[in-house]
Amino acid sequence: MHPYRSHTCGALRLSDEGQEVRLSGWIHRKRDHGQLLFIDLRDHYGITQCVLDVSSALFQSVEATRVESVVTITGKVIKRTADTVNPKLPTGEIEVGVEAFEIQSNAELLPLQVNAEEDAGEETRLRYRYLDLRREAIHKRIVQRAQVIASIRRRMVEQGFTEFQTPILTASSPEGARDYLVPSRLHPGKFYALPQAPQMFKQLLMVAGFDRYFQIAPCFRDEDSRADRSPGEFYQLDFEMSFVTQDDVFKAIEPVLHGVFEEFSNGRAVTPAPFPRIAFDDAMLRYGSDKPDLRNPIEIADVTTAFAGGGFGIFSKLIAENGAVVRAIPAPGAAGQPRSFFDKLNDWARKEEGKPGLGYIVYDAEGPKGPIARNLEPERVAEIKALAGLKDGDAVFFACDKPLPAAKFAGNVRNKLGAELDLLEKNCFRFCWIVDFPMYEQDEETGKIDFSHNPFSMPQGGMDALLNQDPLTIKAFQYDIVCNGVELSSGAIRNHLPDVMIKAFEIVGYSAAEVESRFSGLFSALRYGAPPHGGSAPGIDRIVMLLADEPNLREIVAFPMNQRAEDLMMNAPAEVPDDRLRDLHLRLSLPPAKKP
Amino acid sequence: MHPYRSHTCGALRLSDEGQEVRLSGWIHRKRDHGQLLFIDLRDHYGITQCVLDVSSALFQSVEATRVESVVTITGKVIKRTADTVNPKLPTGEIEVGVEAFEIQSNAELLPLQVNAEEDAGEETRLRYRYLDLRREAIHKRIVQRAQVIASIRRRMVEQGFTEFQTPILTASSPEGARDYLVPSRLHPGKFYALPQAPQMFKQLLMVAGFDRYFQIAPCFRDEDSRADRSPGEFYQLDFEMSFVTQDDVFKAIEPVLHGVFEEFSNGRAVTPAPFPRIAFDDAMLRYGSDKPDLRNPIEIADVTTAFAGGGFGIFSKLIAENGAVVRAIPAPGAAGQPRSFFDKLNDWARKEEGKPGLGYIVYDAEGPKGPIARNLEPERVAEIKALAGLKDGDAVFFACDKPLPAAKFAGNVRNKLGAELDLLEKNCFRFCWIVDFPMYEQDEETGKIDFSHNPFSMPQGGMDALLNQDPLTIKAFQYDIVCNGVELSSGAIRNHLPDVMIKAFEIVGYSAAEVESRFSGLFSALRYGAPPHGGSAPGIDRIVMLLADEPNLREIVAFPMNQRAEDLMMNAPAEVPDDRLRDLHLRLSLPPAKKP
Repeated sequence: MHPYRSHTCGALRLSDEGQEVRLSGWIHRKRDHGQLLFIDLRDHYGITQCVLDVSSALFQSVEATRVESVVTITGKVIKRTADTVNPKLPTGEIEVGVEAFEIQSNAELLPLQVNAEEDAGEETRLRYRYLDLRREAIHKRIVQRAQVIASIRRRMVEQGFTEFQTPILTASSPEGARDYLVPSRLHPGKFYALPQAPQMFKQLLMVAGFDRYFQIAPCFRDEDSRADRSPGEFYQLDFEMSFVTQDDVFKAIEPVLHGVFEEFSNGRAVTPAPFPRIAFDDAMLRYGSDKPDLRNPIEIADVTTAFAGGGFGIFSKLIAENGAVVRAIPAPGAAGQPRSFFDKLNDWARKEEGKPGLGYIVYDAEGPKGPIARNLEPERVAEIKALAGLKDGDAVFFACDKPLPAAKFAGNVRNKLGAELDLLEKNCFRFCWIVDFPMYEQDEETGKIDFSHNPFSMPQGGMDALLNQDPLTIKAFQYDIVCNGVELSSGAIRNHLPDVMIKAFEIVGYSAAEVESRFSGLFSALRYGAPPHGGSAPGIDRIVMLLADEPNLREIVAFPMNQRAEDLMMNAPAEVPDDRLRDLHLRLSLPPAKKP
Repeated sequence: MHPYRSHTCGALRLSDEGQEVRLSGWIHRKRDHGQLLFIDLRDHYGITQCVLDVSSALFQSVEATRVESVVTITGKVIKRTADTVNPKLPTGEIEVGVEAFEIQSNAELLPLQVNAEEDAGEETRLRYRYLDLRREAIHKRIVQRAQVIASIRRRMVEQGFTEFQTPILTASSPEGARDYLVPSRLHPGKFYALPQAPQMFKQLLMVAGFDRYFQIAPCFRDEDSRADRSPGEFYQLDFEMSFVTQDDVFKAIEPVLHGVFEEFSNGRAVTPAPFPRIAFDDAMLRYGSDKPDLRNPIEIADVTTAFAGGGFGIFSKLIAENGAVVRAIPAPGAAGQPRSFFDKLNDWARKEEGKPGLGYIVYDAEGPKGPIARNLEPERVAEIKALAGLKDGDAVFFACDKPLPAAKFAGNVRNKLGAELDLLEKNCFRFCWIVDFPMYEQDEETGKIDFSHNPFSMPQGGMDALLNQDPLTIKAFQYDIVCNGVELSSGAIRNHLPDVMIKAFEIVGYSAAEVESRFSGLFSALRYGAPPHGGSAPGIDRIVMLLADEPNLREIVAFPMNQRAEDLMMNAPAEVPDDRLRDLHLRLSLPPAKKP
């Protein structure tokens, strides 16, 4: 017989009754029932109950072995009596009568409990992560993460993509977040950088003719941490395609995302492909956000015309003098809410959103109500009802400001109402594409024009648009994919034309020479025959978090760093010997010690 | 019709005759045949010949477009005449008559030729890698690398392994090669390290109960480069299993390696599983190497007894006074070689191996010949013939030295003879396991005992062996997998017992406290119930190099650094602005500038 196991702890069934078996695993739990000692033996695959009579010569040594010790148990498979069958366990119809017992590795007193769901606190969990990961819920989530990634890989290959590895020791990227730097030993004073994303390399793969690239790519950003973003490293489903339009990109990735979400949805509904496409301007108007949560049925309406020149002086004055607009956020069925509901929202707007207040109209069977309705002409009140698609029994709130802040505030009100009124569709994943992002934006204070998002995206209309259009009206072939209000990725059809790139940068004040020197690797490549190409890079961690319904990365990454970017288990980062720094041609330049 | 393509350049067949199609790709080659201009249009999937009459209005613009420009061609599929069919191309029965021609991206004058096999030199190839990668042979190899990795992944999953990602920003490892360091911004004076291998994490995954882990893992070593090792980063098939013996590890990975090699063997024979197991001591005796090339049929024999006390004074004196041994390296069929063959080998031994010479005996039909045969008693000459398994027509060479240098020299002679006599089996992959490595070795000069290989391997015999055996006789559960003389990986059953680990380190002079502090992450984990476990980590790059029959990494990695660890295309490593260094609490400490 194998020295450790003839079966795993999840394998035995009633059909194995009478067989001599050997199991190895961790002592999950021991229960002393007077004459009998029960041991739940656990491994990766399951739990099997083992049983020992108090008269057994092994009793003492089994009883003395701590939970979480690793042991090997040999014995016969016994059918449980009807009243002791455990229907929750796949092995629940049998138990193993212990005939031999060998300790493989003793456990000391545990700093956290494996067999209970208590929260041990982040520091303990991460310091003893190898214990934390034994716990049922997180163990399953980490395995599911692996399965999600394997499923994504399989589906990408089915879509004709090939996975390539791109360098991790590479050049500092000139845009975006802060890089991690790696000092070079061979080249004094020089540094590699860890990639924020393999953006340059995937574009170079397209220029090299590889057509459909993907990679489950590690990415690195030296940013301050958030619950939904690992300090340090994270993974993207990075992909890129040649000879494609924006629609081709959508068609390639939709079946992958839809398929993965379906596979792991556990009964939750998933938007079928094709996912809705929503223009950025529309999204800002209807949802007040470029990552709308479509589980929320509320749609915002523009009701500026109903207020312009009307009797509600505050709004009409802002419209006339400040270029303000008014956005209406319906609150379906909220007419029956008590006064305190409206007061609470007003307080929220003032205290958390920094607004003067949150005006509203209540449309109930007896007619419109509220301070605005009292001041506004009835036909205007009716116009609002029509514009915002309201019916009796609904209320409506208003955001009046310049277009961008009005849109953002309206979006926040929409989210708030969705939560307060419990309007969100349950058990579903609602996908959409946000398209037609503006290429440029203007700084309100300086008036300076800059890129809105990615400077390497192709402007819609190409060179002609750059030459002849007001830059602020130019859209880019740039798109985000959003699920349940979470931005999974942004992507673009890239600018593969050196002349168009130079012109696009000229508009924000770069000379051709600056473009060539700052982006030399990619820019040179475009001079030797580059295909039209585009792609995107959905975040793996975010996908897994959505599927696991866990808002914290710690629950879906095996070995995350803590919020201060430390690995408490491995003791990283750490000081290094002076000679290592000398090798790297570096000296420390530490801030003065803080006074105690 | 799609703006870029209705088909790829590898898709069209005779059955498509008459269809209106659109292709996009690179102009691979243009051929002007007087009345007709032929364009070979290339993309990732293949090449399609397009044809244009000199009378066409498009002729001028097509002719003026440089090779490697990206163009879109629209036209009808035409059946080629029998005499112009190209049987080497899958699309060779048709061509496309150009009716519309659009330039997507112009190519400048090329720094290297894509459509020719000339060697442009490493610097040019790496600087313009996006052009180099368009060339047929390397393009195919890079795709094959991706396919090999995908095949490995599939096979590992079939064997019940799950792929997990382990951290890339982690702690400096206390053993092994030089780490790359990453300065921490948040923790002044502290550094992360990039993993030389995910060794600690994979063991921690076993302690966490995950049972069968694998990862196509990026690994980082700041070592000086070699042709077969990337400077900087490389990939391993890292795997680990719980509750296994050494034999279980072999059984799990052999089908994966055998399967992958079979899949990509292109007709070459692959050792069937189970692969031969050869004890380290045997390998050193029979092959003079712990990574024997089993394509070479030569087996070394120990013939010390035949020389001890015999008439060949040089050897008998070394045996008697220096503890030397004599190893016989057969040269099958070499009796017919001219005298110059033996002289040349003698010169090689003196000049390249630093030995006094290379003694030999020739056994031909007329009896033994050569200087040694003249001095050694005939019955001893006959004994050698028997011990080394020689027959008439063979020759035999001798290595006389202390056991280790004798073995190594004999191994080199074996390799040399294999090459000179062209003895190596062709078109095959010969695998073997080398097992039973010594746990410890002794420094000849200092007499100090140290670990031979991995200090974390389980010693055979466990605590009992450590307590009661001469350390130099203890073997470890450590194993290498070797293919055609290339070490693909080393692996081990790990030492999962804290007490045994402390004792193992004590033998080489570490205190328990030192062990606990230097390896605290893993060591602490072993105190809370650790399963017996083991694994290995075959090198992906080496597997791909063997399959591609390419001895240089540059040929099988998409974006390698050059031998000076530079990325010429992306300009890495590079200087960084002072404020970045200040953020990282560092100052440069550069070596004095070299005089010109």
